[in-house]
Amino acid sequence: MPTEHPTSPVRATLASIDSFCRAVFMAAGADEATSDGATRAMMHGTRLGIDSHGVRLLPHYVKGLIEGRINPQPKVALSSAFGAVGVLDADNGHGGLATFVAMDHAIELADRHGIGAVAIRNSSHFGPAGAYALQAAGQGFIGFAFCNSDSFVRLHDGAMRFHGTNPIACAVPVENGNPWLFDMATSAVPYNRVQLYRSLGKSLPAGTASDSRGYDTTDPDEANMLAPLGGEFGFKGAGLAGISEILSAVLTGMKLSFDIAPMPGPDFSTPRGLGAFVLAMKPEAFLDKHQFDAAMTRYLETLRNSPARDDLNVMAPGDREWKVAEDREKNGVELDPATAQSFAALAARYALQPPFNP
Amino acid sequence: MPTEHPTSPVRATLASIDSFCRAVFMAAGADEATSDGATRAMMHGTRLGIDSHGVRLLPHYVKGLIEGRINPQPKVALSSAFGAVGVLDADNGHGGLATFVAMDHAIELADRHGIGAVAIRNSSHFGPAGAYALQAAGQGFIGFAFCNSDSFVRLHDGAMRFHGTNPIACAVPVENGNPWLFDMATSAVPYNRVQLYRSLGKSLPAGTASDSRGYDTTDPDEANMLAPLGGEFGFKGAGLAGISEILSAVLTGMKLSFDIAPMPGPDFSTPRGLGAFVLAMKPEAFLDKHQFDAAMTRYLETLRNSPARDDLNVMAPGDREWKVAEDREKNGVELDPATAQSFAALAARYALQPPFNP
Repeated sequence: MPTEHPTSPVRATLASIDSFCRAVFMAAGADEATSDGATRAMMHGTRLGIDSHGVRLLPHYVKGLIEGRINPQPKVALSSAFGAVGVLDADNGHGGLATFVAMDHAIELADRHGIGAVAIRNSSHFGPAGAYALQAAGQGFIGFAFCNSDSFVRLHDGAMRFHGTNPIACAVPVENGNPWLFDMATSAVPYNRVQLYRSLGKSLPAGTASDSRGYDTTDPDEANMLAPLGGEFGFKGAGLAGISEILSAVLTGMKLSFDIAPMPGPDFSTPRGLGAFVLAMKPEAFLDKHQFDAAMTRYLETLRNSPARDDLNVMAPGDREWKVAEDREKNGVELDPATAQSFAALAARYALQPPFNP
Repeated sequence: MPTEHPTSPVRATLASIDSFCRAVFMAAGADEATSDGATRAMMHGTRLGIDSHGVRLLPHYVKGLIEGRINPQPKVALSSAFGAVGVLDADNGHGGLATFVAMDHAIELADRHGIGAVAIRNSSHFGPAGAYALQAAGQGFIGFAFCNSDSFVRLHDGAMRFHGTNPIACAVPVENGNPWLFDMATSAVPYNRVQLYRSLGKSLPAGTASDSRGYDTTDPDEANMLAPLGGEFGFKGAGLAGISEILSAVLTGMKLSFDIAPMPGPDFSTPRGLGAFVLAMKPEAFLDKHQFDAAMTRYLETLRNSPARDDLNVMAPGDREWKVAEDREKNGVELDPATAQSFAALAARYALQPPFNP
């Protein structure tokens, strides 16, 4: 198949993108579990409109699998257990695979003990943290997911890339509705916002990035590091990043952010030694499920109907994402040019049908 | 003893303030457990310089104990248990008493199961959330504490007081050092900041408060509600407030913030039906303690020595508080005029020696 270089907007259905990703992973030598975990993680991003952590990552992951950063045939297994806690060794496999397995185990522990937590070792980039929190909520459990990542974000008053974007994700089941789903980087904005604004030549929002001396800048070309959430109160965002750092790197015995090799390379052959952390809680261990459900429903109804400024609507965490998901499930998704191009290249390389061919 | 009305700065030692508070509580009819729990909670605030949640609350708590909002002789007990989880009924007693008991239990659960969580029901204002996280860290456990409170904080794009200041606190033990201690309201600033700036006639920082239509204002006299942490990214602060709300009110079966009677009254006779939530984790359940300690030490050393902007110093969560504690342990604390006056009045009422008499 000749290499296509699409220049006009390219659309594809979620299902065809999903199949394509799986086929590419298998063709690249990943085992089925890796193909499944990595694809599910990316598809959470693409389905819900968190495109920075969606299928644009496919070529990145393939490169890692081929060159050695990610183990394509990992033996993911519990390395230790204590009561309601476990430690999972990802064997340098894909972070999506490892974290879905870890959350499955946390759910199992929570079912038995009311609460369960799993520390993940020897893992790699896990994509959108919300995918794992959502996995818990989808089974009726409250879920949390944390990770750290290569340094990008300064500390409050700092002038060094110290923490990663270190997300915190939490999802809560809602009866007869989409879960409450919260997934935030502890920096003010994620790094791809800077990249995007750079490519668009747009000014960054104030208080989101700093130059190499730690001075805030709105010029995306001057931006060297991200600012922690909070602006003047950035000690709050830095503290929240610290929670993710401590749970994901200290409690797991894995690399602190400032020790992690850069995600974009150039080294794609060395495992990055990432940790992560997931936690699940069973509502029924605390109170009657009907009471829990009724309270969540009332909380969300009151929230969504509460007075807003101007003509705006107040949204609950996840509401924006569910809307995007509904649209993309129905209408497919428009792939950005870079992703469409990399899909075409991967399709050519592995003699596969890209998902956007009519 | 005649009522004193001190107008010049009044200083007292921490020990004398502590004794005074306990004596006042006992004289007001509280049992010893209440006197102990409430005093310890306030003293955490006063010792560490979190004065908004320190001993300035003594008259407030006494009023609640006398008029019926707070049960002065509560039977605080576990109402249910499941695995590594418990539910504690505070019997409308003081939130400090209840939450210290709850964290004791969470620590016990974590010692046995690796992790433990306790939902607190029928409680009241618990003061500084960090006190309970610190209790865990002081015993070698990672601790978290959450609560919700009467509505003050709008949602992102909202025009209604929806959440309380809904804090998140986390503390992590550090070998041969003060714990890492993080305690933040999920609003940009706590409410007392508005009150303070109002009394000083100062402009508020941008993005911290809104008028009754939800428009941000820097005029403390116009401020009707607080803004969630994050400014333009206030959906993050609102989501974090949601975590505290869900754990503290939904999971406990207690009142959502918009249902909670106002803290300043006028009703001081009705129990407020607050919930709260504490969690503890045992590091040794996850990895070798020496490895954990070494990583925390390295993390903090790197952080504190990292490059800063201008002549500033980068601080870890808690560093500011430990400095204040050191100073106040040595030099005592200056009581603000209102607190000094209320102490004098309480001393007179109960025929006690106020802590600042030479």
